[in-house]
Amino acid sequence: MTTEGARHLTELDEHECWRRLGDGGVGRLAWSGAQGPTVVPVNYRVDGREVQIRTAAYSSLARETEDSLVAFEADRIDEATHTGWSVLVRGRMTFDYAAPASEGPHPWPEGARRLRMAITPTSVTGRQVG
Amino acid sequence: MTTEGARHLTELDEHECWRRLGDGGVGRLAWSGAQGPTVVPVNYRVDGREVQIRTAAYSSLARETEDSLVAFEADRIDEATHTGWSVLVRGRMTFDYAAPASEGPHPWPEGARRLRMAITPTSVTGRQVG
Repeated sequence: MTTEGARHLTELDEHECWRRLGDGGVGRLAWSGAQGPTVVPVNYRVDGREVQIRTAAYSSLARETEDSLVAFEADRIDEATHTGWSVLVRGRMTFDYAAPASEGPHPWPEGARRLRMAITPTSVTGRQVG
Repeated sequence: MTTEGARHLTELDEHECWRRLGDGGVGRLAWSGAQGPTVVPVNYRVDGREVQIRTAAYSSLARETEDSLVAFEADRIDEATHTGWSVLVRGRMTFDYAAPASEGPHPWPEGARRLRMAITPTSVTGRQVG
């Protein structure tokens, strides 16, 4: 590639990663399942140093991730200016069937999503381009 | 969750998935590496029925994905209206060290990225909310 339009890649420290994750929003969850790696968008909520998501107890996401290593990614990317940042949270997924739905997070698709899952991070890293 | 503001979840057929992926843009690549699942944003290009990305030959992405199963995800999500779509491409990653950089895709960060990788899909699925 040429250097024209190329952007610096810088690391974000953990504090800055949590700041960018904020209270929650939309990210992507990746795990290794029966069909190999899978990655899907999820609504997430940050509580302390946990990333929480919510799903139906019978989903493949639920079947395949309990007590497993997973990766969560969130980013903001500007395709016009070729700049953006991303945060990667790796850790083990734990399930809480008893967490009240009112606590969130609140997935957009309709249907009951009684299972709240939480990632206890083993590493939190981030990068910024631009 | 309440049904207030809830949205229908519908499947996209394969033709529609490729249409949404378009010629390329920004997606996320997930794989299983030494530290468990990982997911990072990537610039991608669609060529025929391949999803191509480009990276440095010495990156962890390159070290950990050759001839391995990977997952590629692209989406468009509107956090204001709680609608959006996502496409998931699963398949095996192959490397092409000889592909001219001019053919793209063109990563935004500066630095040589001589390795072009391509996912030959084994499944292409998509979902839409809203």
